[in-house]
Amino acid sequence: MVDYTAFDSAQALEYVKNQTNFFAPEAELTCYEFGDGNLNLVFRVHDEQSNSVILKQALPYARCVGESWPLTLERARIEASVLVRHGEVCPQTTVKVLHRNDALAITVLEDLGHMQILRAQLCEGHTYTNLATDVADYLAKTSFYHSDFYLPPAQKKALVTEFTNPELCAITEDLFFDDPYRYSERNNYPDELQPQVTALQNNQAVKLAVAELKAKFLSCAQSLLHGDVHTGSIFVDQTNTKLIDPEFGFFGPIGFDLGSFIGNLLLNYCAQHKRITELPKRRDLHAYLLNTIQTCVAQFEQTWLHLAKTQSQDLSLQAEGYAERFINQVLRDAYGFCGTELIRRTIGLAHVADIEDIENPVARLEVQKQALLLGEQLILQAPHCNTKEDLSQLLISLLL
Amino acid sequence: MVDYTAFDSAQALEYVKNQTNFFAPEAELTCYEFGDGNLNLVFRVHDEQSNSVILKQALPYARCVGESWPLTLERARIEASVLVRHGEVCPQTTVKVLHRNDALAITVLEDLGHMQILRAQLCEGHTYTNLATDVADYLAKTSFYHSDFYLPPAQKKALVTEFTNPELCAITEDLFFDDPYRYSERNNYPDELQPQVTALQNNQAVKLAVAELKAKFLSCAQSLLHGDVHTGSIFVDQTNTKLIDPEFGFFGPIGFDLGSFIGNLLLNYCAQHKRITELPKRRDLHAYLLNTIQTCVAQFEQTWLHLAKTQSQDLSLQAEGYAERFINQVLRDAYGFCGTELIRRTIGLAHVADIEDIENPVARLEVQKQALLLGEQLILQAPHCNTKEDLSQLLISLLL
Repeated sequence: MVDYTAFDSAQALEYVKNQTNFFAPEAELTCYEFGDGNLNLVFRVHDEQSNSVILKQALPYARCVGESWPLTLERARIEASVLVRHGEVCPQTTVKVLHRNDALAITVLEDLGHMQILRAQLCEGHTYTNLATDVADYLAKTSFYHSDFYLPPAQKKALVTEFTNPELCAITEDLFFDDPYRYSERNNYPDELQPQVTALQNNQAVKLAVAELKAKFLSCAQSLLHGDVHTGSIFVDQTNTKLIDPEFGFFGPIGFDLGSFIGNLLLNYCAQHKRITELPKRRDLHAYLLNTIQTCVAQFEQTWLHLAKTQSQDLSLQAEGYAERFINQVLRDAYGFCGTELIRRTIGLAHVADIEDIENPVARLEVQKQALLLGEQLILQAPHCNTKEDLSQLLISLLL
Repeated sequence: MVDYTAFDSAQALEYVKNQTNFFAPEAELTCYEFGDGNLNLVFRVHDEQSNSVILKQALPYARCVGESWPLTLERARIEASVLVRHGEVCPQTTVKVLHRNDALAITVLEDLGHMQILRAQLCEGHTYTNLATDVADYLAKTSFYHSDFYLPPAQKKALVTEFTNPELCAITEDLFFDDPYRYSERNNYPDELQPQVTALQNNQAVKLAVAELKAKFLSCAQSLLHGDVHTGSIFVDQTNTKLIDPEFGFFGPIGFDLGSFIGNLLLNYCAQHKRITELPKRRDLHAYLLNTIQTCVAQFEQTWLHLAKTQSQDLSLQAEGYAERFINQVLRDAYGFCGTELIRRTIGLAHVADIEDIENPVARLEVQKQALLLGEQLILQAPHCNTKEDLSQLLISLLL
């Protein structure tokens, strides 16, 4: 057992050289740190032939606020373990874990440097044909195979304990469900948005619906979630999609991951109103984003129901029509969680580049207003939708 | 750390003498075993002045089937810990833990020998004025103070892990939600009931509603339940009510405990049709049982809502109207779980003396048919009730 120490590039290089065998002993290695996250160091180690791996190390504090916000190193164990479990059931869309050292909070991962981060690509107007079905496949398989439909109850209970993740969950509990709906020092929005924020914070119906969503997040251990499926956690190219960074993973409501993903696509959708000035091009991108959401939801539902019909182990949960009812509720939850993502990314602590990088403050404000309104209406109306078609109609009506 | 060994009376006496200080050193102690349960040894140790304590020791197997059904001793730790936690928030209705030894699976408890077991008393037609409000108080306080409304999320997550109880939960999962709805060797009912059982097992709507209930039992960690609130787990006299035996405790759906309690009152209600021949007396007892259920539900709701309004710690869950909505769902769940209790006690492995002790097989069969039908209708119709008044009306209409 080694004591934890935060690596510099030289130490990361030495570690990969001495503790792993990805490179030939005589290889001349280079290493640099390029993490842009707030919570981790990320090193790339490569040889002269451009063979490379990523060494990710959790920091014992949140980097964005100095060392003053301590954060458990346990999350490195959680992240690596989620990746291993998700990788077992959906290897094609989960970044591969090559080596782990929980004492040092280190995970060595395959290098996805030939791919791109989805958020940046969407901001630049690029589209990915397989994105919807790949993400749907990932979300359906990882959630089904860790649900009560599939796992023996005792095994699931052991996993719920293994993936208990209080510190990271607390971040979501606070930032998604609390801060935006009341005064908080952590909230972050321009003064011009105050009337909308005040109206939201006085909207009792919204707060009631958010309470329902938070209660599910707190107590509804349906499956092993990624916990942070935003477009910055997804690598893409024209053939592949890879999910990374599940350090927020825990057993929670299945709709949360799907909702986070849809929410980030909708944040981009709102931003494109001001990002793309040429109308045909904007229409195309809007159509792509909406189609991606609808395809992802439809494919998620279809794959889930297929797995439920062919792979369910629990006897009771195989009752006729139950999987359909279950997944309909998951979809309602997803659109609700999506609404909370839109709101917290607009007025809460953590924003998205899609909107933040709009330079004109008047244009940015308009986008923020739309995102806020869209989030609010999804939260309010999703619980009353019966089917994915209703949910899709709701979304379209809100985007028109 | 002592190795586990199952005690005989002499060992139980020696243990209490040497390891506790309830009795004076010179006291002459007597000890006898009187457990009638299936899973534990229960000793009474008393001195010449009739001072006494109970020493309960878990067996590493289910006694009713010999040593062939091994069962974790962990349940002694769970039981003692639930009693301690429930006792902290509702001391007046929780049996007091005087001493515990988890290695030996021993709990020493206050002796409630001056009180009676509720089931036997109800079977004999006795009534208890405070029963409804005492049980309501116990269920409301223990469930509120271990819910997301009150507990800090990290503390609750730690408790969910501490009270993970896979082996005992598996018994409930199988016996409540699986066995009665399909062929199982463990099912136990007279041949004459086969048409009703077949109809139940072919009723897809019932199986769908039971799937919903089982999914909640499996994944809805709302609060720290007792887990086995039948009328054999309740001591009564005319002034006090004491809950014992929470070895099935775990974090689950709050409605489960209330539903189990109501279910056992209704099993007695059905049985009284044939137990009491004098109509006025039967009417009185039926009225008492129905009134106990309605008072218990109303008082449970009222206490819960009062606690939610005055003691809630979570900011989001204090949204206007949320506690009401939450507890309405808990009540719907309770009536549904109540239905599963009626059914599993009629055709599953474990029956109740209320019905079993009816000697005339024709009379017993009629009672079984009523219990089965009542359970089925509660399961089917409870989810469509909006308020406790609707649920009460439903119950009355089914009992007429």
